[in-house]
Amino acid sequence: MTSLNDLEFRDAFIKRHIGPDAKQQAAMLAAVNASSLDDLTQKIVPESILLAHPLTLENATPEPEALAYLRAIAEQNKAFKSYIGMGYHDTFVPSVILRNVFENPGWYTAYTPYQPEIAQGRLEALINYQQMIIDLTGMDLANASLLDEATAAAEAMAMAKRSVRKNKSTGFFVDHNVHPQTLDVLRTRAEYYGFEIISGDLTTLHEHDVFGALIQYPGTDGRIDDPEPYIQHLHSQDALAIVASDLMALCVLKSPGEMGADVVLGNSQRFGVPMGFGGPHAAFFATRECYKRAIPGRIIGVSKDSAGNQAYRMALQTREQHIRREKATSNICTAQVLLANMAGFYAVYHGPDGLKRIAQRIHRLTGILAEGLEAKGIRVVNSHFFDTLTIDPLHNVDLILERAGAHSVNFRRYQNDNLGISINETTTREDIEELFDVLLGEHDLNASVMDADLTHQNTTFIPENLERTQPYLTHPVFNSYHSETDMLRYLKKLENRDLALDHSMIALGSCTMKLNAATQMIPVSWEKFGRMHPFAPDNQTKGYRTLVDELQTMLKAITGFAAVSLQPNSGAQGEYAGLLAIRKYQEAMGEGDRDICLIPQSAHGTNPASAQMMGLQVLVVKTDVYGNVDQQDLQAKVDQAGDRLSCLMITYPSTHGVFEQGIKEICELIHQRGGQVYMDGANLNAQVGVTRPADIGADVSHMNLHKTFAIPHGGGGPGMGPIGVGAHLAPFLPNHTVAPIPGGNPLMGAVSATPYGSASILTISWMYIRLLGANGLRESTQVALLNANYLVTRLKDYYPILYSAENGLVAHECILDLRPMKAESGISEVDMAKRLMDYGFHAPTMSFPVPGTFMVEPTESESKVELDRFADAMIAIYHEVQQVITGHFPADNNPLVNAPHTQKDLIGDWQRPYSREQAAFPLAWIADNKFWPSVNRIDDVWGDRNLFCACPPTDSYSET
Amino acid sequence: MTSLNDLEFRDAFIKRHIGPDAKQQAAMLAAVNASSLDDLTQKIVPESILLAHPLTLENATPEPEALAYLRAIAEQNKAFKSYIGMGYHDTFVPSVILRNVFENPGWYTAYTPYQPEIAQGRLEALINYQQMIIDLTGMDLANASLLDEATAAAEAMAMAKRSVRKNKSTGFFVDHNVHPQTLDVLRTRAEYYGFEIISGDLTTLHEHDVFGALIQYPGTDGRIDDPEPYIQHLHSQDALAIVASDLMALCVLKSPGEMGADVVLGNSQRFGVPMGFGGPHAAFFATRECYKRAIPGRIIGVSKDSAGNQAYRMALQTREQHIRREKATSNICTAQVLLANMAGFYAVYHGPDGLKRIAQRIHRLTGILAEGLEAKGIRVVNSHFFDTLTIDPLHNVDLILERAGAHSVNFRRYQNDNLGISINETTTREDIEELFDVLLGEHDLNASVMDADLTHQNTTFIPENLERTQPYLTHPVFNSYHSETDMLRYLKKLENRDLALDHSMIALGSCTMKLNAATQMIPVSWEKFGRMHPFAPDNQTKGYRTLVDELQTMLKAITGFAAVSLQPNSGAQGEYAGLLAIRKYQEAMGEGDRDICLIPQSAHGTNPASAQMMGLQVLVVKTDVYGNVDQQDLQAKVDQAGDRLSCLMITYPSTHGVFEQGIKEICELIHQRGGQVYMDGANLNAQVGVTRPADIGADVSHMNLHKTFAIPHGGGGPGMGPIGVGAHLAPFLPNHTVAPIPGGNPLMGAVSATPYGSASILTISWMYIRLLGANGLRESTQVALLNANYLVTRLKDYYPILYSAENGLVAHECILDLRPMKAESGISEVDMAKRLMDYGFHAPTMSFPVPGTFMVEPTESESKVELDRFADAMIAIYHEVQQVITGHFPADNNPLVNAPHTQKDLIGDWQRPYSREQAAFPLAWIADNKFWPSVNRIDDVWGDRNLFCACPPTDSYSET
Repeated sequence: MTSLNDLEFRDAFIKRHIGPDAKQQAAMLAAVNASSLDDLTQKIVPESILLAHPLTLENATPEPEALAYLRAIAEQNKAFKSYIGMGYHDTFVPSVILRNVFENPGWYTAYTPYQPEIAQGRLEALINYQQMIIDLTGMDLANASLLDEATAAAEAMAMAKRSVRKNKSTGFFVDHNVHPQTLDVLRTRAEYYGFEIISGDLTTLHEHDVFGALIQYPGTDGRIDDPEPYIQHLHSQDALAIVASDLMALCVLKSPGEMGADVVLGNSQRFGVPMGFGGPHAAFFATRECYKRAIPGRIIGVSKDSAGNQAYRMALQTREQHIRREKATSNICTAQVLLANMAGFYAVYHGPDGLKRIAQRIHRLTGILAEGLEAKGIRVVNSHFFDTLTIDPLHNVDLILERAGAHSVNFRRYQNDNLGISINETTTREDIEELFDVLLGEHDLNASVMDADLTHQNTTFIPENLERTQPYLTHPVFNSYHSETDMLRYLKKLENRDLALDHSMIALGSCTMKLNAATQMIPVSWEKFGRMHPFAPDNQTKGYRTLVDELQTMLKAITGFAAVSLQPNSGAQGEYAGLLAIRKYQEAMGEGDRDICLIPQSAHGTNPASAQMMGLQVLVVKTDVYGNVDQQDLQAKVDQAGDRLSCLMITYPSTHGVFEQGIKEICELIHQRGGQVYMDGANLNAQVGVTRPADIGADVSHMNLHKTFAIPHGGGGPGMGPIGVGAHLAPFLPNHTVAPIPGGNPLMGAVSATPYGSASILTISWMYIRLLGANGLRESTQVALLNANYLVTRLKDYYPILYSAENGLVAHECILDLRPMKAESGISEVDMAKRLMDYGFHAPTMSFPVPGTFMVEPTESESKVELDRFADAMIAIYHEVQQVITGHFPADNNPLVNAPHTQKDLIGDWQRPYSREQAAFPLAWIADNKFWPSVNRIDDVWGDRNLFCACPPTDSYSET
Repeated sequence: MTSLNDLEFRDAFIKRHIGPDAKQQAAMLAAVNASSLDDLTQKIVPESILLAHPLTLENATPEPEALAYLRAIAEQNKAFKSYIGMGYHDTFVPSVILRNVFENPGWYTAYTPYQPEIAQGRLEALINYQQMIIDLTGMDLANASLLDEATAAAEAMAMAKRSVRKNKSTGFFVDHNVHPQTLDVLRTRAEYYGFEIISGDLTTLHEHDVFGALIQYPGTDGRIDDPEPYIQHLHSQDALAIVASDLMALCVLKSPGEMGADVVLGNSQRFGVPMGFGGPHAAFFATRECYKRAIPGRIIGVSKDSAGNQAYRMALQTREQHIRREKATSNICTAQVLLANMAGFYAVYHGPDGLKRIAQRIHRLTGILAEGLEAKGIRVVNSHFFDTLTIDPLHNVDLILERAGAHSVNFRRYQNDNLGISINETTTREDIEELFDVLLGEHDLNASVMDADLTHQNTTFIPENLERTQPYLTHPVFNSYHSETDMLRYLKKLENRDLALDHSMIALGSCTMKLNAATQMIPVSWEKFGRMHPFAPDNQTKGYRTLVDELQTMLKAITGFAAVSLQPNSGAQGEYAGLLAIRKYQEAMGEGDRDICLIPQSAHGTNPASAQMMGLQVLVVKTDVYGNVDQQDLQAKVDQAGDRLSCLMITYPSTHGVFEQGIKEICELIHQRGGQVYMDGANLNAQVGVTRPADIGADVSHMNLHKTFAIPHGGGGPGMGPIGVGAHLAPFLPNHTVAPIPGGNPLMGAVSATPYGSASILTISWMYIRLLGANGLRESTQVALLNANYLVTRLKDYYPILYSAENGLVAHECILDLRPMKAESGISEVDMAKRLMDYGFHAPTMSFPVPGTFMVEPTESESKVELDRFADAMIAIYHEVQQVITGHFPADNNPLVNAPHTQKDLIGDWQRPYSREQAAFPLAWIADNKFWPSVNRIDDVWGDRNLFCACPPTDSYSET
């Protein structure tokens, strides 16, 4: 007779999250010669760092209870109507997009489209997004999104410096009228770039010698000044003109492109993405053709496949995948793909007429508000505006704000007690009348009557020379899917072209593609999380602050750190914030001269890039045959750095997939020499519950919430990269000018546009940790180790395993060496990656950290059945390669070099030395659930040579 | 300058709902020679019935506002914890099923799987469901679900009568201990079947001469009596033993099948389907092998395809599709596929061990509650129980119910002031302690301590001889997908095998497969609608009652009727309820002898079946060449019926797709002769906003909310078939014993288990009507007419159009005559239906109402682009048939008879007179979005001869 205790379901979610059940685990443990998960763990993780006690976390919580608890937290938020503006506006997420993209694992569990043949759906969606940005900004080229508007501005500043040759100035001018959070991030970034930020009224621009300037159009206060004279002035000085703008305003405003801007950037949030207390949203970034090789971030381009058909893929990838470590100047790699896609789909669904109507309506309502206020003696400071008024409430500010509170309405309050009011898509005529109530008290204004008056007067409040005449969104894709039925089918069509976690394992070494459970995702859609402005007053955001506090507490328990900042919204941003804390700490200690950063050979490319951005000089440390840091070389480099040693950046377990035994000693050595240890969190999934970065000796570490803590990859973003730090570094965590962080250091600036980065998706990691609890987290880590080692046993007789420990065990991932086979057969790692698609699998991480290899990380969420399928596929590929070696297949015509195979291939003539069946269904189980690549192998080189990054012209849409 | 009025977006949703935009509509109007939608309407709809004024409905409401308004209505509901039981229990819907099935258009927009080659996903899901029912009930065979438990019991009663040969009794015994709503529906049904319901304690069974009996096990009051002696007694009398049971209880109870039961039925709701104030849920129905041809409803079976591979399809379809009209005894055709699938997936996800654990936990908590109450002197009436206690609160009932209110807890209250308490999956140990608080006031009971005591005593409260020993869910499908990752992929795999509205048009004549907009679907998931027990007290259900009132008001405005009942949960149920009202009315008028029902030749098969069930004799009226009722024959049949004329059942526009000119005269004739007019609502989509059934002369009509009012078909259910009636019939609408309908006639019984049928999906139709408003509804109808007539212009030169009006126009659907081509070529309508799959389309309605035809109803939601694709496909098929006629293709080897073509076909040898490309990609646009049938043509005859309706044995799952 079981007791209620046995029936409490406390560990119910653990069994859902972990792929292999007890029986499968037993079989796998036998295969790796371990008696238990603990036994295996002890064989892999150095004894000196093994956690003695369970993590101090709440018990695992069953799914419905966790949902109920988080719901109660959400209800602590008050979703006031937001007129705050500042780049964040309430919006209607079209239900068809909400349900079929935002809430659909087919979209959100996909990985970054490095394997474009099985990612044509989201690549097309991103091309649509880029085209939309190009059209609205009037520029030549746009990237596939950046993290937020403020960091986009910082990237633009850096790009400007890289792009001007003759101009030797280090000054960068920032319009007084930019959003304050943008200025905050620019100041942070500029410091270690060695730039001087000159902030002032645009009219003073000519007084300064600068390499570039950021102009906001319309201004943060709503004003619409003509940027063109300033752009011309900048060009006359060989300086770059960067314009921050607003997509909705650009639907009715003359585009910056027409005025000669070099870069146009901003936030695409208000195109159908919830505010979410700050994110995630896609920042846009557009530039001119001549800067196409300087543009930061990812960019999607059109190329062709081996059959000559048009196909999409990430352009100029070599810039990213093989960042030349010591020369990098930007550490950007994550984009906000899911959110960029949503914004792009918003434009596809509304079309140019629909967008224009939304923009006109916003403008019309703003006009009614302005006229009404003026009629009642309230001065609108800006006579020209699109959607934002700055008003002078004449000493009534407190009374007005009291009424605003009673009406659940938020304004922006300036330091001079002026108020900012931004109208948005969700505002109704009743809302305008409510605003009259709030701003005027008793009144006799009727929005409809005023509208009739205005209509009669034929009025707009946009300067005549700045009204938009340039058409936009003329491509058929923006003019074809305006009924919900058509839109749904378009979304579904694209979804089905992409291989995501809902189809099969994506065993990407270093990327930890684990389950993104539905229960974890559900709260992101809740209004009480979605409709919160990032700068809403504290007394309305109690829910978010509880969430933040609890998640920080959880992450501190998991990592052992004293403090956590949730601000960085990507892993690379976390690196930057971590190094910033180190530098600021060292400066505070009078050791500002420490400017050398040691980085092992095997590090992620972002490490040296981040170091460069912090003004650090990088010294590379060699690696030994086991994948460990070469202790001798480390000693030598430490000696070489001497008093200039700032820090070591080290990944643990290493990017070679090994728990180095000497890690504690390495950390001690660095500390002895006055340096700090930055532990890259890419492999944290192998540590959770088993060891802790702080215990090992790290001073700071970032945690990729989108790897270890279940935030989905979204097809290439969002991400989140919070950092944990030791107590000594805590005072140097990022702060925020607009919304200061409780207990934050007022001398520290921001690294992201909002204090908690992409706050709304913190819910996912909160749920993940609550659902698993200490035991579940530990077991997850242990099964991740088991899964990787089981794969080693299945594959080691076919592919040499690089960098296992001396006992033959690996950590949570393993590197398969393809080079010997390549040498014998001529079949490359790319051929094998593409061939895996025919077997229904996404390739593992290719050629990182070692060229000519696959790095395989199955994660704990994959069952033995799926691991066996993957192993079967890899073994079948091995045999195919053998047939090339034996000459059974010609080197230039075999299933590998011809991979991937499409439906079209099967239909045409078949002059190949293998059958159609072998091409598409090489193993029996594939037919049960075949995934079809939608194009043949894509020609990257051709695409980069013939760079085209917008919707291709088409006559296939010729509609009657 | 546009004004705010133009920018209000009042008609925003109309443009989303209607497929063709203004430009497309203009082109189509030109093609059909109409100057405007109104002009076209006037040419189609008889002037005498054209609506003079717009419908009196609220204005169209933009999507976000409609959501906000319905949210406010939902918030009027109070979701108390329900311990009411009576067949409805709170449950956890697994998030992975909620998000990926319940909220996924890939599942909910599919049609009934009449075309099994493109429906293998949900057919497999339904086979899983059937297997689960078979296993848990211990029976040989189960159907794919019925509408609710009460009507399932009524169907069982009817089946019992059909199945006993020698037994001439008309008595049917009903256990006192069945749910009262079951008894209510049985009484209603029995009356016109001519059965006598004998309700009493089971111990009195032997006193009666009956053809069958319904036993509930466990009883509605929680008791567990051994049914076996009664079953044996019934068999000794050549009577059938029908057992109503509970799936969760059967996880730990001896199965009725082991005891010899002939039928086992019940509600599968608590297997992961929200209570939803009464539905929709899937009722289950299982029987013995010997009754396999008598089982009501749909049943999924295993057959093989033309390549010999195993494939699923609806078995014994001939019983349904071609109901022999005058001989039908059941009008069942809708099932509850979406909900059956959810319940089946619940079992797949939990597996046998998981289900057993859930059931044991429920039982354990119930035991703790019982022991605690007994210890404190409260008598538990039933000493044996699974999850339900009946307690005698000793005159404290009012005090207890007061405390219950304060704790937001609901019990069942019996007339003798006993209380019923049913524990469910969501109950926690804290809830048990709260129940002690409520039931005892001050107490010192601790559930955990009591649990330890009980564990020590090794106690269960199930009679020892009734404990379950028979294993269940041993098939691999119930033992393979217990991690969320595995489950998600399984769901996705099945989803991708099915063609639903998210892929292409499903132009099913008479089934109106229109857009099911995401905004309409979202509220169904809200807790305030989902977690409501159907018999919750009125003061907690204000939201639902508001919804019901408003929807009734809307439907009255749309139909012109005086009263509406929302109780019937399918169209056929609506027919039944409508005829019931007519008969009861006529009886009240002293004209109970009127027992003849006239039905035109072209009627749906359900019409005569419903008439039979009401004890009416059917006279068939002929149809003329235009598809209209033959007036002369009608006159003759009216004369023939004389004073026995009860009613005419007529579909309008006719099932031939024509608005008969003489409809008003027909109605008048019937009325003159003292008869009533039942207007079948199948084609109501051609009337809304243009004319109204009541204005035409109908006395009663049903409205298929799942056709006309946007409830999705769910792959074969749910449906809803409310009826509207004239004022004279209003007193004869269904009522409900357990939860009487306000203003209802206490003499009327129920036709469904709950007062408002599948109440939770009424939200969808409410949203639909609010979003469109009067103008949008009218425009939708008009575009439905336009779309059908545009297709006629595209296709009439290839396929004769049957039954157009004299001006050549059709209504909202058209019948393509395939018989001439078949005669010439030997290519059948089935060949053409299967060939359409290769073009990516679901076949239109086949051979109804005329054999050898396609009836095509595109609905207003399809754009011209999609209509043209469909027309292109039909024309391409025409040319293929011509190539058979000319001998270019052999009659037995051509793209039509070999259709559909699968991926496998392309891989194998190709000995066909047409290319692989012609097989699978016969038109250029198909490759852009190819849908693959997953099997070749399925052999229905073989399947029916070798009936096998459970999960096929397999060795493909052999897991290590």
